[in-house]
Amino acid sequence: MANDPLPTTQPTPEDRLFALLGERGQLQVATAESCTGGNVAARLTSIAGSSAYVQGGLVTYSNDAKANLLGVSREMLASVGAVSPECAIAMAEGARRAYHADLAVSTTGIAGPSGATARKPVGLVYIAIADGAETRVESHTFPGDRAAITRAATDRALELLVEGVERALAASLAG
Amino acid sequence: MANDPLPTTQPTPEDRLFALLGERGQLQVATAESCTGGNVAARLTSIAGSSAYVQGGLVTYSNDAKANLLGVSREMLASVGAVSPECAIAMAEGARRAYHADLAVSTTGIAGPSGATARKPVGLVYIAIADGAETRVESHTFPGDRAAITRAATDRALELLVEGVERALAASLAG
Repeated sequence: MANDPLPTTQPTPEDRLFALLGERGQLQVATAESCTGGNVAARLTSIAGSSAYVQGGLVTYSNDAKANLLGVSREMLASVGAVSPECAIAMAEGARRAYHADLAVSTTGIAGPSGATARKPVGLVYIAIADGAETRVESHTFPGDRAAITRAATDRALELLVEGVERALAASLAG
Repeated sequence: MANDPLPTTQPTPEDRLFALLGERGQLQVATAESCTGGNVAARLTSIAGSSAYVQGGLVTYSNDAKANLLGVSREMLASVGAVSPECAIAMAEGARRAYHADLAVSTTGIAGPSGATARKPVGLVYIAIADGAETRVESHTFPGDRAAITRAATDRALELLVEGVERALAASLAG
């Protein structure tokens, strides 16, 4: 107990991204957000100097915006719906293309309190990360109210983006 | 002094927008953000039920994104720069087109601490609102640090959007 370390502040994912890319800026990132509504982009750009690696992001709240601006298939939206792993994947890949970015992260889910269905509860969020070679997608069911779900989804999206950048940097060093 | 009113909480602009459009949803809005980086969209979508009137928003941090996704002229970006009334106007009009929205609001400025020039200080922000008939633009120089400038610009953009919606609703009632 006498050797407890001093309390330290954990760096946020956006701090970590700046540490990875802020000085070198050799990778560009972008976002496509539905349920997080711009919070991922806002966190990324809260960091002074983030313009070295943040191209921008799309908030696509409506299905029309997902189809028109991200190229998400209307057939897919009609069949599996916007809250689906397929849509998260298409959104991340669409944002990567739209911004000519190296990596893009996406969120789509039900922040509540309304919008739930029998098979899709409030808090269900899909988060995808695309790097051009592959696209990974995760499913989460976050607890809490609209603000808590939005925050948890935003945190996880930022973490996935950092992990994706770390993988891409490691691959470029190895390549 | 004895007749001081009880303290009241002022409704936020995003609350006022929901009061105007949340039940009826007869107007659709969108955003184009540079220096506010997604905060305007995040505030709009923090309101449950905002999907009735929020199409989405574009965060265009780079000039390439402004040109490719919002149709901002590269010649204009090269001549007057991204932090200009011309760019704010083009961004708002571009977002309105991209999202097929009735109104769109835009922000472009210098959140700092770097990025200032001899003629463009940290805190200089242009905010535009486009409703299809006209586009208004304002110039502000907000005090404080990056977070304070971002917050002030976000607040003012949301207020301009509410005022624009009020004008559009009044015109549609009169028409």
